[in-house]
This record gives sequence, structure tokens and C-alpha cells, in this order.
Amino acid sequence: MVLVSRHKELDQRLARAEQQLRLLQRISRYLVREMNLQDALNGVVTLVVEFMECDSCLLYLRDGNELVLRASNTPHPAAVGKLKLTLNEGLTGWVAREKRLLAISREAYHDPRFKSFSDLPEDTFEAFLSAPVISRRGVEGVINVQHRQPHPHTGFEMELLTTVGEQLGCLLMLSGVEAKPANESSDLVLSSGPERVRSS
Amino acid sequence: MVLVSRHKELDQRLARAEQQLRLLQRISRYLVREMNLQDALNGVVTLVVEFMECDSCLLYLRDGNELVLRASNTPHPAAVGKLKLTLNEGLTGWVAREKRLLAISREAYHDPRFKSFSDLPEDTFEAFLSAPVISRRGVEGVINVQHRQPHPHTGFEMELLTTVGEQLGCLLMLSGVEAKPANESSDLVLSSGPERVRSS
Repeated sequence: MVLVSRHKELDQRLARAEQQLRLLQRISRYLVREMNLQDALNGVVTLVVEFMECDSCLLYLRDGNELVLRASNTPHPAAVGKLKLTLNEGLTGWVAREKRLLAISREAYHDPRFKSFSDLPEDTFEAFLSAPVISRRGVEGVINVQHRQPHPHTGFEMELLTTVGEQLGCLLMLSGVEAKPANESSDLVLSSGPERVRSS
Repeated sequence: MVLVSRHKELDQRLARAEQQLRLLQRISRYLVREMNLQDALNGVVTLVVEFMECDSCLLYLRDGNELVLRASNTPHPAAVGKLKLTLNEGLTGWVAREKRLLAISREAYHDPRFKSFSDLPEDTFEAFLSAPVISRRGVEGVINVQHRQPHPHTGFEMELLTTVGEQLGCLLMLSGVEAKPANESSDLVLSSGPERVRSS
């Protein structure tokens, strides 16, 4: 009986690992294919939702000292390209500023760094996983994965989103998108690789 | 008893999948880190040998109509940068020309496309897995993974090396390496994504 349940657990872990592998392989295809950047960004967000089984994926790209919502799995037609955060706002701004992964397994909306947008349903979601989008140029944006219900993130999920953030940074560089530097007054320091912070 | 052996098999498959995942994550780090290209190429080759548990990994990059050995896990100090193949030579040339993955599980040296270099011990190896290094610019080189003993390649191994080839292509573009185009007389056609061919 113990063996059967251990067996089932192994089966699930294998399925998840193979799914994560496929996600990175599918994203890699976007990096070598000549295609429209917006289509590629939408494609990556769709893949993340499918393979990470989350309820929401929002991608913000940096424009000077702001982060602008550039892709989303849920239709926010009014928000894409318009919803903006400064680097000092919200959990997302914190991730860009600190260049660190952030994982909150429940009640993300109670985090003191949280900023509410009354028009985004994601504001009521419990679990929040967020990684910087980085390239050789530094922080290029932030990718957020959210679950409606509490969700304890595994180390594999955290590593995975970190890698997705790196691959997105490469996609931006390869697409010839010029990084718009922050004002000189910005306190953004872009040095070593991302670190992990887990809050719960 | 059947359950125990199935259990062991699952365990091994899980270990392999997690290993493959880690390989792609480690390679991704090279894409976002500002570093010397040769060090990055050597680093990727070392990771491939470690995570794919093969006996040899050779990386050829394209220089016009030639493929030049640029990195190797075994010390071929005399050969790196000097060993050259034209696109019409050997299994490696075939992979670049056809832009296809090639998997030979045994007796690779008996393949009619094989070309021997008397100074490379890899010429006596049984199993050969080879993927094009590709970017948005087209074929940038070829990466070969070899086993001394016969080795039936799994679908996961083939997919993995295909992705490694794509990531290397991105690394070259990100490093600002200019692709040296083939002469106009070349019959190299760089169009759709890589296809798979399995010989055995």
C-alpha cells in the first residue's frame, strides 16, 4: 500500500518534470524562429499557463522607470500596453528592483508590498510567483504566475520561472528590442544573477 | 516484484528528466551572463557531457562553407580551431546541410556518410547523436554527442540536443558573433525548423 502510493507520487513527479522540460523546449523554439515579437510574447505566456497549470500569467516589460503590461493570458485588452507600474510599486516593482524571484504561497494581497489595481481580477488571487526578465543588459521586465487558491511553490517551479525569465530576456535581445534605460536617478542596480526570496 | 521493478524504472526516468531540466537551466544562465564566448562554449560542452552522460561532445561552428571544431570535452588542443570539414563532408556536414537531427545508435563509422579523421579517437565510437546549431540567421554549426558503446537514443535525448543546438545558436547571436555566410554557390537551404532522422 505504501509502495502503491509512493508509486503514484513518482508518476506525478515524472509527469511534472517532463512537462517542465517541454515548456523550456517550446520556448526555445520561439528564440530561433523569425517572428513578430508580440506574437512570441503571447505565445510564451500561453505556454506558461498551459505547462505551469496556473490561473494567470502577466508579463510586464520595462520602459525607463516603468513596467508596462505587455502580455496576459486573460483578455485585458484595455490594460495591455496601458497598465503601468513604477519600479517602486507593488510586488512586481519589487522583483524588478531587487532582481530576485519572489514566491508567496497564500494571501499575496496581504503582503505590505502589494499594490491593488481595481480592474485586475488577479488582485484577489492567493498565490504569487514572480521572476525578473533578465538579459545581458540587465532587468528587462517581470513575469508573474498566479494561482487563485493557495499554492506552495516547489523548488522546481521557482527554478523554472527563473529560466523562463532569462529566456524572455534573450528573446527581447534577439528581437532587436532596445532596452530603454532607467533615468540616472534610478536606484536600480543590475549586477549579479537573480536570488530567491520565499515569503509565505 | 513487478511493482518494485516498475518503481525502479520510474525512479530512473524521473532522475533523467530532472537532469535534462537542469541541463537546460544551466545553459540558460550562460545566455544571460556577460562572458567570453569561448568560455561559454566550453562551459556548454562540459555541461552536455556531464548531464547527457556521453563519452564525447564536439562543437563545430560554421565559417563560410566550412565547419570548424570550436570546443570539445576531450583535450584536442591541436585540433580546436584547426580541424575543418566542408559542408559536404561526414555525418557532421550532412547535419548542417540538411538542418536535421541525426541519431545513429551503433556502428556510426559504417555509415556511408561517415568521414574519418585519423587523429580523433571519437572516430571509433559506436553511437552518434548530432544536432544543428541554429539561430534566426540559419545554421551556425553542429553539436555532436558520442558514446563509445552502442546507445539507443531516447526521444527525450533527441529533443534535448535539438534544444541545446537552438540555445547555442542564441548564444552566438547574443555574443554578437557575425555569421559568415556561405558562398552563393552553396546549396545550403535554411528554411523550416529541424527535422529528425533516426538511423540504426
